[in-house]
Amino acid sequence: MRPNIVLFGDSITQESFSSGGWGASLANTYSRKADVLVRGYGGYNTRWALFLLHHIFPLDSSKPPIATTIFFGANDAALLGRTGERQHVPIEEYKDNLRKMVAHLKECSPTMLMVLITPPPIDEEGRMEYARATYGEKAMKLPERTNENAGVYAKGCVEVAGELGIRSINIWSKMQETDGWQRKYLRDGLHLTAEGNAVVSEEVVTVFKEAWLDPAEMPYDFPHHSDIDGNNPEKAFQHKCL
Amino acid sequence: MRPNIVLFGDSITQESFSSGGWGASLANTYSRKADVLVRGYGGYNTRWALFLLHHIFPLDSSKPPIATTIFFGANDAALLGRTGERQHVPIEEYKDNLRKMVAHLKECSPTMLMVLITPPPIDEEGRMEYARATYGEKAMKLPERTNENAGVYAKGCVEVAGELGIRSINIWSKMQETDGWQRKYLRDGLHLTAEGNAVVSEEVVTVFKEAWLDPAEMPYDFPHHSDIDGNNPEKAFQHKCL
Repeated sequence: MRPNIVLFGDSITQESFSSGGWGASLANTYSRKADVLVRGYGGYNTRWALFLLHHIFPLDSSKPPIATTIFFGANDAALLGRTGERQHVPIEEYKDNLRKMVAHLKECSPTMLMVLITPPPIDEEGRMEYARATYGEKAMKLPERTNENAGVYAKGCVEVAGELGIRSINIWSKMQETDGWQRKYLRDGLHLTAEGNAVVSEEVVTVFKEAWLDPAEMPYDFPHHSDIDGNNPEKAFQHKCL
Repeated sequence: MRPNIVLFGDSITQESFSSGGWGASLANTYSRKADVLVRGYGGYNTRWALFLLHHIFPLDSSKPPIATTIFFGANDAALLGRTGERQHVPIEEYKDNLRKMVAHLKECSPTMLMVLITPPPIDEEGRMEYARATYGEKAMKLPERTNENAGVYAKGCVEVAGELGIRSINIWSKMQETDGWQRKYLRDGLHLTAEGNAVVSEEVVTVFKEAWLDPAEMPYDFPHHSDIDGNNPEKAFQHKCL
């Protein structure tokens, strides 16, 4: 019936239905027009996400998504030799993993709208504060992620999109255009505040609209209530439901 | 893969993915365990919703929802002779329509968890204020809904649930237990504030848990990232993904 929009990514996708979240906002924007399904996996990098690819997007699906956001990199960019080392994926492998994801989704559906989203910027100070507040004395002494390194992965993500001719959102750059982005958009130096979520949802909707997924041009699944004649409701439903 | 939870209802369901909405909150609660699909139709009463029933819940579905909320009545309870007359459905027909919905869903899946939710209370003063703010001079002179009449439909909804042996949430009663419910829970005398949404999501999760749909007892779709060995990720995925 309704088409599906799938959000594939890490924790920033997994928690996108929390209050003010970008996923919920997207679901609301496409209300009665498309279902928004969250496929977010906290802590995952692209290497681990590849194990899920064929299960989340089976090649024999009779109803592949019409659109998918691919939003990884925050964990891949965790630094070697720091507390997030386990999650680190080298930049060239990250780029290659994104290429594999896109190739698989194209095989699923050649018409699927795909949008690569870069990792967000990192506020190293906010990250350290969060660690101290959470772990006290045992907190890491050096940030496990740096903004500079997240930027390397953001650049890589945009390059892959360009090379494959698909759309991308450079949320790393976009957020840093606003003064005070560190606290305004990030709640722990990495994950998004409600305002940070709003930036992501606005960017995604803009890119979807620029492509061909404009909610204003998509039909309602069923008649708007104002089109139903109280004395003769059958009429409004005859095309779709009778 | 993941089971579906469907929210079937009117505008209070349709807008349940707006910021702070009860649907988004439910999706977040069942994150990585179930998909929450909104099937909310603003302005619809149960008479019109019946036209959609076979389309939203086809009998031959290979994957019927594991749980469905049925949340109608706010429009059925619109008064005759007032501006919402077109939406009015007599109480006995409302009850019978709910019975038809439940019978159909049982036919779809005998194990489906069904929860009937009553219409919320009505703050007549808030309703009039909203009308004056929206329509000025042309606003209705008498409220198109009354709390008393919403209560009749709430009682009818609970009766049907009892008669059919399914669960119900009397949100009409529940909200009125709190002083100042009129402004605390309703933003225009009818639709829910963020706090009103929180009441609904808490009640739904409580009933789901009391039944058998406890998110804490449902498995994650894929391994938690902390269960993945960085040096040997295949191991974590071998059961589900290899």
